[in-house]
Amino acid sequence: MLPNSTLHKAFPVALLGLIGLFGFLGLALSPMEAWCQTPDVAPTSPATTSPATEECLGCHASIHPGIVEAWQASRHAATTPARGLKRSELERRVNGAVPEGLREVSVGCAECHTARAEKHAGSFEHNGYQVHAAVSPDDCGLCHGEERRQFAANVMSHAHGNLAGNPVFGQLMQAINGSPHLKEGKLSFAEPEQATQDQACFSCHGTRLSVTGTVTRETVQGEMDFPIIKGWPNRGVGRVNLDGSLGACSACHTRHAFSIKEARSPYTCKECHEGPDVPVYYVYAASAHGKIHAALGKDWNYEAVPWTVGRDFTAPTCAACHVSLLVDTEGSIVAKRTHRMNDRLAWRLFGLVYAHPHPLKPDTTIIRNGQGLPLPADLDGKFAANFLADAAERDRRAKAMQQSCTACHDSSWIKGHWEHFEHAVRETNEKTARITDIMQEIWAKGLAQGPGKGPGQGGNLFDEYPERIWSDAWLFYANSIRYAAAMAGGGDYGVFEKGRYHLSRSASELHDWLELRQLLTNAKEP
Amino acid sequence: MLPNSTLHKAFPVALLGLIGLFGFLGLALSPMEAWCQTPDVAPTSPATTSPATEECLGCHASIHPGIVEAWQASRHAATTPARGLKRSELERRVNGAVPEGLREVSVGCAECHTARAEKHAGSFEHNGYQVHAAVSPDDCGLCHGEERRQFAANVMSHAHGNLAGNPVFGQLMQAINGSPHLKEGKLSFAEPEQATQDQACFSCHGTRLSVTGTVTRETVQGEMDFPIIKGWPNRGVGRVNLDGSLGACSACHTRHAFSIKEARSPYTCKECHEGPDVPVYYVYAASAHGKIHAALGKDWNYEAVPWTVGRDFTAPTCAACHVSLLVDTEGSIVAKRTHRMNDRLAWRLFGLVYAHPHPLKPDTTIIRNGQGLPLPADLDGKFAANFLADAAERDRRAKAMQQSCTACHDSSWIKGHWEHFEHAVRETNEKTARITDIMQEIWAKGLAQGPGKGPGQGGNLFDEYPERIWSDAWLFYANSIRYAAAMAGGGDYGVFEKGRYHLSRSASELHDWLELRQLLTNAKEP
Amino acid sequence: MLPNSTLHKAFPVALLGLIGLFGFLGLALSPMEAWCQTPDVAPTSPATTSPATEECLGCHASIHPGIVEAWQASRHAATTPARGLKRSELERRVNGAVPEGLREVSVGCAECHTARAEKHAGSFEHNGYQVHAAVSPDDCGLCHGEERRQFAANVMSHAHGNLAGNPVFGQLMQAINGSPHLKEGKLSFAEPEQATQDQACFSCHGTRLSVTGTVTRETVQGEMDFPIIKGWPNRGVGRVNLDGSLGACSACHTRHAFSIKEARSPYTCKECHEGPDVPVYYVYAASAHGKIHAALGKDWNYEAVPWTVGRDFTAPTCAACHVSLLVDTEGSIVAKRTHRMNDRLAWRLFGLVYAHPHPLKPDTTIIRNGQGLPLPADLDGKFAANFLADAAERDRRAKAMQQSCTACHDSSWIKGHWEHFEHAVRETNEKTARITDIMQEIWAKGLAQGPGKGPGQGGNLFDEYPERIWSDAWLFYANSIRYAAAMAGGGDYGVFEKGRYHLSRSASELHDWLELRQLLTNAKEP
Repeated sequence: MLPNSTLHKAFPVALLGLIGLFGFLGLALSPMEAWCQTPDVAPTSPATTSPATEECLGCHASIHPGIVEAWQASRHAATTPARGLKRSELERRVNGAVPEGLREVSVGCAECHTARAEKHAGSFEHNGYQVHAAVSPDDCGLCHGEERRQFAANVMSHAHGNLAGNPVFGQLMQAINGSPHLKEGKLSFAEPEQATQDQACFSCHGTRLSVTGTVTRETVQGEMDFPIIKGWPNRGVGRVNLDGSLGACSACHTRHAFSIKEARSPYTCKECHEGPDVPVYYVYAASAHGKIHAALGKDWNYEAVPWTVGRDFTAPTCAACHVSLLVDTEGSIVAKRTHRMNDRLAWRLFGLVYAHPHPLKPDTTIIRNGQGLPLPADLDGKFAANFLADAAERDRRAKAMQQSCTACHDSSWIKGHWEHFEHAVRETNEKTARITDIMQEIWAKGLAQGPGKGPGQGGNLFDEYPERIWSDAWLFYANSIRYAAAMAGGGDYGVFEKGRYHLSRSASELHDWLELRQLLTNAKEP
Repeated sequence: MLPNSTLHKAFPVALLGLIGLFGFLGLALSPMEAWCQTPDVAPTSPATTSPATEECLGCHASIHPGIVEAWQASRHAATTPARGLKRSELERRVNGAVPEGLREVSVGCAECHTARAEKHAGSFEHNGYQVHAAVSPDDCGLCHGEERRQFAANVMSHAHGNLAGNPVFGQLMQAINGSPHLKEGKLSFAEPEQATQDQACFSCHGTRLSVTGTVTRETVQGEMDFPIIKGWPNRGVGRVNLDGSLGACSACHTRHAFSIKEARSPYTCKECHEGPDVPVYYVYAASAHGKIHAALGKDWNYEAVPWTVGRDFTAPTCAACHVSLLVDTEGSIVAKRTHRMNDRLAWRLFGLVYAHPHPLKPDTTIIRNGQGLPLPADLDGKFAANFLADAAERDRRAKAMQQSCTACHDSSWIKGHWEHFEHAVRETNEKTARITDIMQEIWAKGLAQGPGKGPGQGGNLFDEYPERIWSDAWLFYANSIRYAAAMAGGGDYGVFEKGRYHLSRSASELHDWLELRQLLTNAKEP
Repeated sequence: MLPNSTLHKAFPVALLGLIGLFGFLGLALSPMEAWCQTPDVAPTSPATTSPATEECLGCHASIHPGIVEAWQASRHAATTPARGLKRSELERRVNGAVPEGLREVSVGCAECHTARAEKHAGSFEHNGYQVHAAVSPDDCGLCHGEERRQFAANVMSHAHGNLAGNPVFGQLMQAINGSPHLKEGKLSFAEPEQATQDQACFSCHGTRLSVTGTVTRETVQGEMDFPIIKGWPNRGVGRVNLDGSLGACSACHTRHAFSIKEARSPYTCKECHEGPDVPVYYVYAASAHGKIHAALGKDWNYEAVPWTVGRDFTAPTCAACHVSLLVDTEGSIVAKRTHRMNDRLAWRLFGLVYAHPHPLKPDTTIIRNGQGLPLPADLDGKFAANFLADAAERDRRAKAMQQSCTACHDSSWIKGHWEHFEHAVRETNEKTARITDIMQEIWAKGLAQGPGKGPGQGGNLFDEYPERIWSDAWLFYANSIRYAAAMAGGGDYGVFEKGRYHLSRSASELHDWLELRQLLTNAKEP
């Protein structure tokens, strides 16, 4: 257990006494910590660790003390699936048909790293056990089946393929990750190296894991063989695993504490949602919700299941609006838990090139716009409506989200906020369309290689300088404005930080570029 | 009350016992929390809630649990104005002539939302009460009269009109918020939509509220009528309210906890002071003061009134230097409380176009520079001195600020710091003047439409690309340098983050733009 | 002692009782706090304060309550060097031959501010004591000799001279800090004022202190003389002190608490490592380690010496990987304490212009590249190998760092991470070289003044606009990519925040600039 330094300061003598008392009673503090997170359950005997896990701990506790200590302090170590299944419906975190052999022991090393070994390419013999390093959503789903199913329907689980399998995004990746080189006075970007792609885009989107061989390594137990896994390590949310499943639960539930407190903190989402393309964390931190969290959140209870609005916390974190099971002070459900996070999202704010109604299927590579491109809107802004949520579905999702708002805001507040938010979607799409007009003119005049099929066309849409001014506008600034509008605050984020000041500046810069090239053409043709 | 998860970990059994004991004694923990924030007052009976507020709570506790729980845990719920008035002068937070009917009850829903109903346009009949949603500074001023008067003299309360009523700023808003469109090869920005303005600039500056009609809505109590309020919701610091008053106390004191802990945290100010135009929070977070707050601040006492330097906190937050009543360990006053935050500010660092002595009046639309523009300085940097603090007033304000510094710094430190600070004001104004020279040359040559009255002049000062390079320089980079200098740290903020590297880069870019256009002109005229 | 507001909430009555009890026992809580940070030591009598320090406190406690209170709560006030020397080797924080007179008293005002007075220029007579304001590393080294020696070998202690004594960096400082001015249509930057340099680059690098005179000041004790110190105040890590020593321990160990908790927090390093040139803090905050720290770190024990991985903390802060003495749960050393922070760094990620093997000596002004410039690499990327760590030394340092990783990660994870990291070094150096090719062509064509010696050459390398596009690329974006790679996370930092998107955009912009100038030349020469 982590020493409580705060407590030490005020109760030094009392603390020493109490620690002694607990020691005398033979109570280890570590498992008690987990029990106390749910004080409605009386402490019983500590959870049994399986013999297999005991064997793992025998060596690894001294080799990797950090891993083992984090696990020791976790709920996985302190309880068993069987105990979890006995809890009331609102409190329960395990579900589905937990396999018999896993029910009565704590969830330790062996329970996860030897689970479904036959499904994992590259699982290897290790001291008599068939082991795999990269635990997959299907492994976690043995106990958390409902969450696993929801996540499979979530666009995030398809994050690898949705990027790797979309040729337009492929152009963007090449323009970003490829090495620039001059050839006959023209600049182009080489095909990116896989190692660059893996630590760039696929760091968050997830890599494709594959076994490429075996290596023999000297260990404290002598020589041992281990698989060589390409794409490892990676915790991306759409990782393609060695059992073929998609995703990595550890993206948000960091090994080996798998702390719900951590998952509910906004810092968890920040890891991938913080660039100007998706400035979710920064906008949140600058919003009224974020300031309350920053100022007062250290006293909140992030571990209660269900999570009681107003009592456990007084302003939402990301999880409160998008994931968690919320109840009011009388125990009535405010919002159901979901791991298909777009359940409550009518609009996808992320501009491609335009913000658009949320795609209906998690695999977005099937989308075709009117021009036949795998994008949710035409370059002039018309939606690829067949693949996207219609008005009725958007309304259903909006209402689902607003149910959470109601816990702290009245109807006129919510209505006014929602109008602001949808106005921002329309406003920024309109502005993006006008800036795209300028880009289209540049392409049409042959001043840059555009998407067309004519002579001098058909180039990468993102590799020339005016194209970068254009993509700044919708990828960074229109997105930032929309996220600021969605989170009801962070006003500055929508203006001077990354917002309207910069969106209009991009319009001016792009137009200036065009004007100058035209002046130059005129100068050459007197 | 929020469960204390930290405590749970160390004292699980003891805690359960103590909770039981408190339960037995019939003591609710919630009101005790507020008492304990001021341990000099012995717990007495809980504060009486008014019958009107009880009626509000009857429905709203289950509809809006978040609102009610936040209030329940607040000082407003736990005490009464009468009790507050009995405290010693330094501890007292209520003042003025609290109306008789408000004295002996807690400050609940009805006390604020039915106060001065006749003054509020759009107040409406609601279950027998005349109610208004948007509580105004004049409502808060019933108990907090001194703070209300100070805030009225603060430039922040005039933030709406100072922006909306200044035609030069109007040009900037149009260039930022208007939709760009091409017309005969020239780019211009349309008049911005009000909805865009409201969620952009007026998000922080405050909207102008107005009642535009009535809507009938289905509620748990059946059909009810509510006013439709344009500009709502908004918590901007200069909001124009339906009773004609200016400001929103909830900008910093978030409803419905109105927590002094939150108000004293730097995150409160961040909500509006975080863009590169006023990067106050970011500079603070990177300063020595900010690092101490981030590392050690979770153990500080943010609730004590008065606030004891060195004991309650060991490095200032924004409030400590600009707002709060500070005392030393012997109870002597270090700084008086003020809600006219510019009381201690000699210089207004915010460049318009130049940093300038602080304006004397909160209404800045009355200012005219030598060119007749409503700006505190000419375009070449000469101050509109008649409207600004003179040397004696600046000295008085500087000394007021330095009194707080003395609590932790010796005279030579403070003197050296102040010289650095005032050097940065001069340095950045000088650099801004030199960059403005280039801009003036661009305007003079007719390469962009400038502020003059001649042919091809009289355009928007901020809508062409070179004008945006120019405004980047003073609005983002010169400002950032000055804030970094003022807060004695965040060295990187004054150089590579948003500082001198970028200021000089803007100079180079603007000059490069001019040079290129001149080369082009030369090319055309051989 | 800081009141524990968390505790107040749950145990109000119990707390008052216990506080009463402690009061009765005559135990001040303040010194107990420090003892409790090391619960293995039984509380003994409070440390004796020296008569000289008592005299200081007599006046300064009321003049500067913040300073005195911070010190009162510190370990320096609560213990003595003699007690420290009695501790076990792993717990010990004092070392070397502590002078006899300092051993048996607490480390108070007089112990530091009168130490080695004869060595300090500008030390002055003050109420019978010879005092100096700026305490130096050699003063701290009286008790902390080992840390002082390590720090002297650290490149950071030479931060002033390494910048001030390098003419290439001098050009960069002039282009950043100098005032821009037009002369015959050409823009140049004046020699920077010293006051600007001091609060810009030397804010972090450290100023050069010098005594320029004496001032008589009115004090509570009447008129007193004080030295005037140029370059003061400053806490830069490479400050040139009045005793000739280099550095400022207070850069990281802020006066007057000198808190190890603060030094171990990531916010400490942020003060200087947060601009896009060295975005260490931002990358950390966006990494898996940083998110765990942000979500769970408030419950960690930052004060234990040695620092136990997994028990005291569950994810590293900056100090854990670069400075602190780490042990595992069995007390075995995971990493030794070092104040030569580059001990474990194979590569210096900071591009000058290229990331390079770490310099062997802390004085980097001795380095010469193949072109004779004081840079660790040629402009085409070839390392100045004679001055830099060779492969064997790099391997030794990499292994030293990886030892810490092993506490929480297995060999394949570490190996994969390291390959990613070294790939990013190669990748970004390669991309920098290609962008430098474009820059070289611009110089070669005479479109900007380059580093050569021919006609139209020999100018400042950083003052023209294309040169700034070029320096953005390697100073901000290549650096950010490498730091993101090094810290195994913050994927977005390596792409959209400040990474590959921007690096390739700089390549496009620079090439666009060149192309346009060439088109213009062609237009002029038909």
